[in-house]
Amino acid sequence: MLNCMALSFVRDAARCKSPLDAGGRQLRSSPVKQVSIGVLGCGNVGRAFASLLDQRRAAILARTGVELRVTRIAVRSLRKDRGLNLAPEVFTDDPMSVVEDPDVDIIVELIGGIDVPLGLLRRAIELNKPVVTGNKALLATHGAELFGAADSAGVDFLFEAAVAGGIPLMRPLRESLAGEPVRRVMGIINGTTNYILTRMSEAGIDYPEALLEAQELGYAEADPTADVEGHDAGAKAAIIASIVFGAVVQSSDVFHEGISNITTEDVSVADRLGFAVKAIAVVEALGDHAANDPEIAIRVHPAFVAKSHPLAAVRDSFNAVFIEGEAVGDLMFYGRGAGGRPTASAVLGDVVDAATNMVHGTPGRIGALAPARIRPMDDLRSAFYMSLAVTDRPGVLAQVADVFGRHGVSIQSMEQQAVGGQRLGDRARLIFITHESRESAVKATMAELRHLDVVVDVHRAIRVIGGEV
Amino acid sequence: MLNCMALSFVRDAARCKSPLDAGGRQLRSSPVKQVSIGVLGCGNVGRAFASLLDQRRAAILARTGVELRVTRIAVRSLRKDRGLNLAPEVFTDDPMSVVEDPDVDIIVELIGGIDVPLGLLRRAIELNKPVVTGNKALLATHGAELFGAADSAGVDFLFEAAVAGGIPLMRPLRESLAGEPVRRVMGIINGTTNYILTRMSEAGIDYPEALLEAQELGYAEADPTADVEGHDAGAKAAIIASIVFGAVVQSSDVFHEGISNITTEDVSVADRLGFAVKAIAVVEALGDHAANDPEIAIRVHPAFVAKSHPLAAVRDSFNAVFIEGEAVGDLMFYGRGAGGRPTASAVLGDVVDAATNMVHGTPGRIGALAPARIRPMDDLRSAFYMSLAVTDRPGVLAQVADVFGRHGVSIQSMEQQAVGGQRLGDRARLIFITHESRESAVKATMAELRHLDVVVDVHRAIRVIGGEV
Repeated sequence: MLNCMALSFVRDAARCKSPLDAGGRQLRSSPVKQVSIGVLGCGNVGRAFASLLDQRRAAILARTGVELRVTRIAVRSLRKDRGLNLAPEVFTDDPMSVVEDPDVDIIVELIGGIDVPLGLLRRAIELNKPVVTGNKALLATHGAELFGAADSAGVDFLFEAAVAGGIPLMRPLRESLAGEPVRRVMGIINGTTNYILTRMSEAGIDYPEALLEAQELGYAEADPTADVEGHDAGAKAAIIASIVFGAVVQSSDVFHEGISNITTEDVSVADRLGFAVKAIAVVEALGDHAANDPEIAIRVHPAFVAKSHPLAAVRDSFNAVFIEGEAVGDLMFYGRGAGGRPTASAVLGDVVDAATNMVHGTPGRIGALAPARIRPMDDLRSAFYMSLAVTDRPGVLAQVADVFGRHGVSIQSMEQQAVGGQRLGDRARLIFITHESRESAVKATMAELRHLDVVVDVHRAIRVIGGEV
Repeated sequence: MLNCMALSFVRDAARCKSPLDAGGRQLRSSPVKQVSIGVLGCGNVGRAFASLLDQRRAAILARTGVELRVTRIAVRSLRKDRGLNLAPEVFTDDPMSVVEDPDVDIIVELIGGIDVPLGLLRRAIELNKPVVTGNKALLATHGAELFGAADSAGVDFLFEAAVAGGIPLMRPLRESLAGEPVRRVMGIINGTTNYILTRMSEAGIDYPEALLEAQELGYAEADPTADVEGHDAGAKAAIIASIVFGAVVQSSDVFHEGISNITTEDVSVADRLGFAVKAIAVVEALGDHAANDPEIAIRVHPAFVAKSHPLAAVRDSFNAVFIEGEAVGDLMFYGRGAGGRPTASAVLGDVVDAATNMVHGTPGRIGALAPARIRPMDDLRSAFYMSLAVTDRPGVLAQVADVFGRHGVSIQSMEQQAVGGQRLGDRARLIFITHESRESAVKATMAELRHLDVVVDVHRAIRVIGGEV
């Protein structure tokens, strides 16, 4: 039997819950637990969070016995009206004063960036204040330090909103799948690139036009680099790997390849062959999982995803995370990966959790992270789609196939394609789908193909996921 | 600021975690927390649970500082060898002795049925033992009593496996979405019916043949009633409604309609019109959500689901639950809703949670349920697909349309169908999709249509979800 010393106190605290009338007022005499929230940053998500909390206060109180109030908000400029139902003295332009305010119980960080929030959250943890953040860049660079500090201090450090916006992902990974040997996680975790690729596929427009549309809709920034080159998805993938494998994985560990050179031809060939082109993040445990010290592979790149795979059906700016577990089999979580209100919903879920944990005296549970071994990209195995422009004369295929063969890259299927129904003058297009092969061998194959006289152009290769490979 | 009396103890407990070597042995002197599990029932899931726990013991210990052991298992017959790595004295045929064993910390109930496990779990809660169960029938009939008892006793009562097998659903609903105003939950939560409907659609076979296949594969029972008539999904829907709306909802509150009279013609018409036929459970908050006392609608029935809806792509025996939240937008959880290992994975997730909660002194959090108001089916509004066999002569459509009009059922689209490319002798088939209309009005329309001379047969109506209605 366990030592249950602490249980009696905690159960008394839990019993403080009591029924409420419709207006959220307490009907019995037991005191409502008040928890004060300090919010750092009042942009899109911060405003949505404050107003959602306002809307849901009574319901949360009725369910948990805890009354949440935003008592301080740090803003960039005190002059701007944010249209929130809060007294002027709640606002300040000094975020550290919010962290250090003895009346603030929980810190919600929505400032963004790295250096400023890092200092603020270090201080919050020092002060034993639970932290909720949606800051993926911070976690993907300083996650290990912050998780470790929170673990030592015994305070909650929650970040559901950082990876997949409104999709509950971190809590299921950390808790529901605590007993599950997870082999692989594949995610569409950048809404901007998924929107662009969906439009290229469904409307037949090219990359620049689809990007422009995404920018007009506010899905893409004026400088879209972080999204389209995979840096955003890479940071999120690093966080997923940290949690799934309990290991220190950072943005800089992630191989990434962008989507900016995907053509409408790639997309239409994919469609004809039974694939959708998607920007995918892949996190994998390699080697001996049972030893609890897995080598990890982590990468972000465009991929041909078989249409029979659930990720292929994830359209527009939606996100989805597909998990392959040894016992549980295949799981997928789907939803809005960005946007003020979905993200605010995830932040509020974390705040409710942190607040009830505080009231009930539960410590943070994140655990410290172990060092990770990242397998180099060259040592991974992938199937590839590859497309070559060649001189259209007898014997060319034999020459090309010979190069594949010498590098040990086995061909699953090949076709000679008539572009737009026509031959390209004296050129032909050869399309290959390879079996799973070592990345370094595919790279070497492409390099050698480029030097063949008969090869006019090696269109870059795209990895294939979920086909019969 | 909160009163933090209990925090110091709890944090010390949390610090007992320490690094382990590869074999799971403790490297430092702080004691490992041992938690003993008593398992009631050793069928498919029970066996898978015991062996998964064995496989994952070291990894769970490394992450949580808690060592889990199955110390008692109640079985029906002591003579059967279950192929588990456990000493003979672990087994007993007296389940109550497992519950009452002072060395058993957590009770895992996998017996099934209602009366026997009810008595066992009441006793477990009396003894302040956390309970993990996968028993949907029990929860859908006695959930309110058991939740209330566990809440008063301050013990965990967890049942992730009861609703959607291996899919993490209860924890996200209870915790991640604690701050979210959920409007509607729609689920494919019976794998048997989804398998049958998928085969009818993709292989073109009829219901009896698809059922036979499902039985041969072990997806359907010899008596398939509970699955195909919607009782199984109804029990799960009741549990979802209880958790989402914090209200007492039972199996008997659920309207259900089965799939046994769905024809291949229904399925092919659906396909042609852009729908997939799916057996769907729908749980909805009606009226004023903000008042935290929503009226609830709850039903299980076959539906035409628009192919653009993510639920339409859920194939074979997979399950999925689609959540519409006011702030978070659309979410979907997808995975294996049944099977020994997926279900065992969900049970183990709950056990890890209950065990770490015990060690850290966290109370149960389920909260007591409020009474529910269930809106009668007749008062709901649905769009319908309806198909009639009529006498093929002028003026028939006008007569039929008049009946719809007089009951206020507005028609979105109509077509006269040639069955198998041919007219039915002197008959024609009329197909209607209605706009959303009151269920009672649609019922009255159908009753009156049956009495028209020109109507030969009113093929039963099927509700439409997610179309342009």
